[in-house]
Amino acid sequence: MANSPSGDSVTDRLVRVLETFTPTRTVQTAAEIGRRAGLPGSSAHRIVGELVDAGLLERDDDRRIRIGVRLWELATRSSQALRLRQVAMPAMERVQARVREHTQLAILEQDEALFLERLSAPDSGANITRIAGRLPLHASSSGLVLLAFGERELQERVLAEPLIALTRETITDPAVLRRKLAEVRTLGHAVARGFIETVSTGVAVPVRDEAGRVTAALSVVLPRDAPTEPALRDLHAGKRDIEQALGFRG
Amino acid sequence: MANSPSGDSVTDRLVRVLETFTPTRTVQTAAEIGRRAGLPGSSAHRIVGELVDAGLLERDDDRRIRIGVRLWELATRSSQALRLRQVAMPAMERVQARVREHTQLAILEQDEALFLERLSAPDSGANITRIAGRLPLHASSSGLVLLAFGERELQERVLAEPLIALTRETITDPAVLRRKLAEVRTLGHAVARGFIETVSTGVAVPVRDEAGRVTAALSVVLPRDAPTEPALRDLHAGKRDIEQALGFRG
Repeated sequence: MANSPSGDSVTDRLVRVLETFTPTRTVQTAAEIGRRAGLPGSSAHRIVGELVDAGLLERDDDRRIRIGVRLWELATRSSQALRLRQVAMPAMERVQARVREHTQLAILEQDEALFLERLSAPDSGANITRIAGRLPLHASSSGLVLLAFGERELQERVLAEPLIALTRETITDPAVLRRKLAEVRTLGHAVARGFIETVSTGVAVPVRDEAGRVTAALSVVLPRDAPTEPALRDLHAGKRDIEQALGFRG
Repeated sequence: MANSPSGDSVTDRLVRVLETFTPTRTVQTAAEIGRRAGLPGSSAHRIVGELVDAGLLERDDDRRIRIGVRLWELATRSSQALRLRQVAMPAMERVQARVREHTQLAILEQDEALFLERLSAPDSGANITRIAGRLPLHASSSGLVLLAFGERELQERVLAEPLIALTRETITDPAVLRRKLAEVRTLGHAVARGFIETVSTGVAVPVRDEAGRVTAALSVVLPRDAPTEPALRDLHAGKRDIEQALGFRG
């Protein structure tokens, strides 16, 4: 596409506009979008106006801007995220019916765990995960699974970066993380007790696609001191169901 | 954004590229995208390349193009569609646990019913609905609810257009549709027996937001000759739960 005087493409600017919207910032003025996207005011107003005209953004009665339903529709209806989520949903429902806390499905995206789905019981405990939200690979049980069964290069990249502590129990020492990843591979599951929130324990298992590659992590979030064994049995049953639906013959 | 020689904006071209992907056409070559989007080959390759660089589209090992997970993430994480779906999900789960067929949530979008969520029992019957898919307002039970409780202008617009028959039972006579809409308003629900697929009956109820506006339709799809009364009781209970969560004090 055409480039602006500053040399960034229109696509870059579009992405920067979309990136200003987050799970906790769903409504903004055009001026706020421009400032957060690093765009000059006139440019921000023009690009926001065009995106509103196209339905990708929506303007409410107070002239504040939201992500448009049309963008959600176009991004979702033919996405791999939807396909995987649909294949996994029956198994997730069965896990959720037994565990009755939180059941989640995550994939690897840009060196983080991206959550495609989360089912939660109305009265279940704490859980920071959001649909279309992300968590660090080294801290979440889903991330540990995706990292442990991921490519060597991914592991070295993550181990070379600072490991951020979300709680006092998050693994921040690369040597400890390396041992944890070896353990996850040996056991075939990850337990993250208090790594994300001190009150919760995450438990995750890998899900393989028809080529045998780990394509997702199926996980539950339990109260910190709940026994993990019953949940692990349910997760393994769920994992097998999803893998069968994906065509994996393990 | 900058305009092309033909006068359409880059945003228009971007939307046309995204629109070439559908629930049944999830993978295409850049050349196919260009042809379907009405873009010259060089232009199509450039825009697809930029969208791939930005992660909004993805290129697989065979150089075929898909919707990118990053686009799904950006479009979903702060969307109204996700918010409404999340609010409705516990009630939908309860309806689904009792009806054990298909439970759906739809909103009005560009004069069609757009489905935000669909829960299906593994052994349930036929259902053409897809998540992020659409159905005509006059034919689906969800659409009839959204139309009956929608603005007068919407009704007149739909009644003035040809009413497409999806089956021999779909209402195609504007006068009959007008009477049906009055009935839906009187009863507070819509039954569409065989309108979409001859083997199925859709049943839908309106869901009101805190301002009392009908913001969505909650529906089930049943085998054609199943009794509708038990499903209606479950739908009304579900509708009340969602309205309460949305802040409607009816």
